[in-house]
Amino acid sequence: MTQPLLQVALDNLELTEALESTRLLAPELDVIEAGTLLCLAKGKEAISVLRTLYPKNIICADLKIVDAGGELAGMACEQGASWVTVMCNAANATKLNALKAAEKFGSDIQIELFGNWTYEEVAEWKGLGLKQVIYHQSRDALNAGGSWGVANMKVVRKLAEMGMEVSVTGGLELTTLKLFAGIPVKCFIAGRSLRNAADPAAEARAWKAEIAKHWG
Amino acid sequence: MTQPLLQVALDNLELTEALESTRLLAPELDVIEAGTLLCLAKGKEAISVLRTLYPKNIICADLKIVDAGGELAGMACEQGASWVTVMCNAANATKLNALKAAEKFGSDIQIELFGNWTYEEVAEWKGLGLKQVIYHQSRDALNAGGSWGVANMKVVRKLAEMGMEVSVTGGLELTTLKLFAGIPVKCFIAGRSLRNAADPAAEARAWKAEIAKHWG
Repeated sequence: MTQPLLQVALDNLELTEALESTRLLAPELDVIEAGTLLCLAKGKEAISVLRTLYPKNIICADLKIVDAGGELAGMACEQGASWVTVMCNAANATKLNALKAAEKFGSDIQIELFGNWTYEEVAEWKGLGLKQVIYHQSRDALNAGGSWGVANMKVVRKLAEMGMEVSVTGGLELTTLKLFAGIPVKCFIAGRSLRNAADPAAEARAWKAEIAKHWG
Repeated sequence: MTQPLLQVALDNLELTEALESTRLLAPELDVIEAGTLLCLAKGKEAISVLRTLYPKNIICADLKIVDAGGELAGMACEQGASWVTVMCNAANATKLNALKAAEKFGSDIQIELFGNWTYEEVAEWKGLGLKQVIYHQSRDALNAGGSWGVANMKVVRKLAEMGMEVSVTGGLELTTLKLFAGIPVKCFIAGRSLRNAADPAAEARAWKAEIAKHWG
């Protein structure tokens, strides 16, 4: 089984704060995400700055697109985004427009599973040519007491069995990763668990070691 | 019946383009919207520039929030947004966090109805203290051949009867407005129909006259 990638989500309101994290973390992990907060605070420059500084990393722009898929994905990929997120409840035309715009830059689209969605829809998106989904727990829901459990693992496994590349995110901790052992996760996405660690680089290395242990 | 407001959506990728529209349109209408495209292109500065230039207008930040409601709504309202949009499929905790953050600035939240939603959910949001909804047709869906019809009017009327303040948007034209006559629409939102008119100010005045004719 391919080893899952590790992604840091930069959910900062200030670019300088985000760069303080990436300075330490970029060499230790695979994917750097310009979070929605950062993109809305700094605009497209947040993406181009990350692309310029980290040419070897995958750069994800977490735009959470719901409309104007071609315009937004095109803008993000022009700035250097490798992956751009689109919400699952966007119209299929939006998903397709985003995918077409991304592919012009050799980039890809990730469908964020959020709120109401069905496996029938996932199969439909696969038929449209979409390859990646993100299984997501809401920050606000987690703050209200949610957590990762067996029911979540079943969903991730089923999505992978359907042939989708599945990234997972939302309140992940180092100790959460082993719950996914045996499931071909595309990418683990963590924010504050990595960024706010006492030693972010050491924490990222510990996550990579934990991933290697269970998927190596 | 209170006359509906008129809102221009600035769905530009460049701030200068947006300001060329507002220079002509701001005196003629009520609400200026920093569109999602503009906010993701320029960041929060798009909001603060509009607030600075147009202190008398309502400024809407179309962030389409799906998570981190408090952080995003707080950021937008700190920059001067009067209204901030939250997607209907966001967790209720996200909607409430956004509302609380907005109210600290005397601002408000608008729930954007998009994809799957039910009247039961609308009643629930009302119970949580949310007052505004936006009934939306997707740009991509409209490009694919959708249009406004009797079925749409029924939905808007029902939402108003439930006590919500309803704004409507998506491919509206001057000739579309009369279809809503007799329904207490909060605000008509138009983008390219106003911005790309040969004489945007005259076009906005024509829309205001049409509104006065049917709701005056």
